[in-house]
Amino acid sequence: MPLRRFAFGRTEDAVHPDTIRAALSEFVATAIFVFAAEGSVLSLDKLYKDTSSATGLVVVAIAHALAFFVAVAIAINISGGHVNPAVTFGALLGGRISLIRALFYWVAQLLGAVVASLLLRITTRGMRPPGFSLASGVTEWHAVLLEIVLTFGLVYTVYATAIDPKRGHMGTIAPLAIGFIVGANILAGGPFDGAVMNPARAFGPALVGWRWRHHWVYWVGPFVGAGLAGLVYEYLVIPEETPHAHQPLAPEDY
Amino acid sequence: MPLRRFAFGRTEDAVHPDTIRAALSEFVATAIFVFAAEGSVLSLDKLYKDTSSATGLVVVAIAHALAFFVAVAIAINISGGHVNPAVTFGALLGGRISLIRALFYWVAQLLGAVVASLLLRITTRGMRPPGFSLASGVTEWHAVLLEIVLTFGLVYTVYATAIDPKRGHMGTIAPLAIGFIVGANILAGGPFDGAVMNPARAFGPALVGWRWRHHWVYWVGPFVGAGLAGLVYEYLVIPEETPHAHQPLAPEDY
Amino acid sequence: MPLRRFAFGRTEDAVHPDTIRAALSEFVATAIFVFAAEGSVLSLDKLYKDTSSATGLVVVAIAHALAFFVAVAIAINISGGHVNPAVTFGALLGGRISLIRALFYWVAQLLGAVVASLLLRITTRGMRPPGFSLASGVTEWHAVLLEIVLTFGLVYTVYATAIDPKRGHMGTIAPLAIGFIVGANILAGGPFDGAVMNPARAFGPALVGWRWRHHWVYWVGPFVGAGLAGLVYEYLVIPEETPHAHQPLAPEDY
Amino acid sequence: MPLRRFAFGRTEDAVHPDTIRAALSEFVATAIFVFAAEGSVLSLDKLYKDTSSATGLVVVAIAHALAFFVAVAIAINISGGHVNPAVTFGALLGGRISLIRALFYWVAQLLGAVVASLLLRITTRGMRPPGFSLASGVTEWHAVLLEIVLTFGLVYTVYATAIDPKRGHMGTIAPLAIGFIVGANILAGGPFDGAVMNPARAFGPALVGWRWRHHWVYWVGPFVGAGLAGLVYEYLVIPEETPHAHQPLAPEDY
Repeated sequence: MPLRRFAFGRTEDAVHPDTIRAALSEFVATAIFVFAAEGSVLSLDKLYKDTSSATGLVVVAIAHALAFFVAVAIAINISGGHVNPAVTFGALLGGRISLIRALFYWVAQLLGAVVASLLLRITTRGMRPPGFSLASGVTEWHAVLLEIVLTFGLVYTVYATAIDPKRGHMGTIAPLAIGFIVGANILAGGPFDGAVMNPARAFGPALVGWRWRHHWVYWVGPFVGAGLAGLVYEYLVIPEETPHAHQPLAPEDY
Repeated sequence: MPLRRFAFGRTEDAVHPDTIRAALSEFVATAIFVFAAEGSVLSLDKLYKDTSSATGLVVVAIAHALAFFVAVAIAINISGGHVNPAVTFGALLGGRISLIRALFYWVAQLLGAVVASLLLRITTRGMRPPGFSLASGVTEWHAVLLEIVLTFGLVYTVYATAIDPKRGHMGTIAPLAIGFIVGANILAGGPFDGAVMNPARAFGPALVGWRWRHHWVYWVGPFVGAGLAGLVYEYLVIPEETPHAHQPLAPEDY
Repeated sequence: MPLRRFAFGRTEDAVHPDTIRAALSEFVATAIFVFAAEGSVLSLDKLYKDTSSATGLVVVAIAHALAFFVAVAIAINISGGHVNPAVTFGALLGGRISLIRALFYWVAQLLGAVVASLLLRITTRGMRPPGFSLASGVTEWHAVLLEIVLTFGLVYTVYATAIDPKRGHMGTIAPLAIGFIVGANILAGGPFDGAVMNPARAFGPALVGWRWRHHWVYWVGPFVGAGLAGLVYEYLVIPEETPHAHQPLAPEDY
Repeated sequence: MPLRRFAFGRTEDAVHPDTIRAALSEFVATAIFVFAAEGSVLSLDKLYKDTSSATGLVVVAIAHALAFFVAVAIAINISGGHVNPAVTFGALLGGRISLIRALFYWVAQLLGAVVASLLLRITTRGMRPPGFSLASGVTEWHAVLLEIVLTFGLVYTVYATAIDPKRGHMGTIAPLAIGFIVGANILAGGPFDGAVMNPARAFGPALVGWRWRHHWVYWVGPFVGAGLAGLVYEYLVIPEETPHAHQPLAPEDY
């Protein structure tokens, strides 16, 4: 059934004011997120040279968690609050968004990340955004696998709290859950490969700082993880929409 | 009255698609939780060898709080959001879930924790998950008592915010309350015995890291604490469902 | 008009099952809060001897914020979620609770704090709870004034989010706001006098650790601050209930 | 259309009890916010002399995030929860508030910040509030640009979650989003220029501590950023109110 919803989109979709508005919303939300997120790394650089301490990890994880929560909250009613090309890919594979609309989102997200990185470079008088790299001993393939697992968790959370028609009250706190799984996953994966889970988050600083080493890792891992999460949730978790299931399943009913 | 709800479950319960879906949901949620939670400990190991500092405690407590909040939020509408065999035990004793369903949950939760621990071991190129141990000077019986007290607080919170039919608006923020009592309790009990409150959280890393010392503590303590909380809440706190009590008790009414 | 609501309570109030249940709820919530809050201080003691670092301040503030949020959330639908004799005093002065009921709450809150402190002493093999003291250079009268200001903020928050009949959506996140103002105020006032804002929080550890120096500060300050907040909110902020004011004032309407 | 709403206000607006009550609410909320926020900086001063460490950044960012969340939550139903002259300016430019009302808010916000700073000075026995300054290497114009970008993010968040008539469920967590973008932005911009985003936050400590260097930066930057956010959101993001757009756009509908 979800497949029925999958479509390459109608042409008028692209020029519909709602699509433009949604893309604008993704652009602004991604810019706000990347500015605070990458900014927190530069901020540690400004305070002291060594950024690989547990306190630095706390700073970066909290900055990402709070900023991604906000970015999702300010976009969710207009664009669905993806703020992440991998989330858009998961929604595309699950049949929740048309390809045309996904293309608009991707361009807006990448542009937002680039503009944020440029603004960071200007306001910090030219500090070169560090972006992401792999810790010593971490191979690209381990990093890809790590990104798959972490992004699976993120996109599964997006599905369960923001997309699932039976999400109920959880819709109210969806942005919090989505932002906070980003924070938790950074505490777990940050010291290994940055725990990016978001190609736009990696792309902006990579372009403006011109650092492309291992960059493909942050596209392949998140896209595979997001795709898996979309398929698993869409086909295994969302209840069949048979008549008897239309009654809400409240926790006290089991 | 709650006892009337207690049952060993009908056979068809086990094969009903809703039960399977709920178990799948518990599996994924527990895996996402354990991956971030145990991952944050490995992450500290990766950054520096000493993990017993106050900053390390902050990292671990925040990772657990955020990840458990998310795990509950993504499962609450499908399985009730237990993500913890002790919570399932408390719900069983309170008559809120059948034994058959509880068995499905327990298997799913333990499997989720094991899969997360295996994925952690693979993505970190073989780092052995440390799991939990008792601090010097803490006996097993002190740890059992500590786990009883901490888990009582956790499961009482689950009852008050996610199960109580009169929970009202609190249902919306139930996952936050449940995740954050985990974080607060780790800040209090973490340096003594790990403040586990969750046999699955202990079991996954114990199996994959093959460390079983004191392991029984993390089953007996949480089960006793959860059972007590279930009975106290179910029999003492939930109002008698006599007619006059059907009117909602708003805070400004007392 | 609020004064009309002020009363010494009817005798049957005290023996009504709802009053008993509310007192039980206050007892459990206060115990859960004090166990995590005071536990986090002992936990720093266990990790290293020096607890007066900025990281220690973060640990203590987060533990209090999370645990008080949870304590309010689990009690709000049953007792109004005071978990603090000063809040009960503010509600009494504002005419929101009868004196009989307030007495029940006070006893329950103090008992909860004492039981939590005892359990902490037992589970930590006899560690003496440190409780609160004044930093060097802080006089008792400065501490009283600081407690007045901090508790005013706390109880004003309770009024605006949990008691005000026009609180609207804020009721859903009231426990978060109430818990988080405790955390913020501890970051501001903690290094000076502990930023207690709650006589029960001070009383439990004082009794079990038998330290009474400056103890009166933590009763007088919070009661004065809470009383002021109750009167200011009740008489100046809550709109007159004249007919034209019955229409909700939505933010977009001004 | 929003321009139609722009007005200099009627005279009776100023003396209407609702306006007075709203100004009182802004006064108290700003005082509570500035007391905790500036207090956290003094608190670091009290603990140790060096406040420019990553842990200090965490303390200050968390204090601001929690306290601003609470300040917005306790004022949102009465005054709209601005707690910031720049937010009021953004709402004025977007036509959401009359000039008369804005003047009342500005006076109330500045008074609240001054009273909080005075109370801090008294309760800490005369510690001089440090306020804000530019880090070495940061020029005033870089700081102005940084404040523009950061405040744009803040006021865009206010618009998307608290003002947009289509904000839906996000209204419930608006104060959280508004408080947390403040926290995230401080983690990014704090070490450069303080990441103030709020003239009242800067004004109170500047007056009481009598430090006016670079002070204009914290008025010009936030006002420009807030104005831009108000115009962008009001004219580009808020959907035209044509009939077809009256149907809510739920995330699962795209």
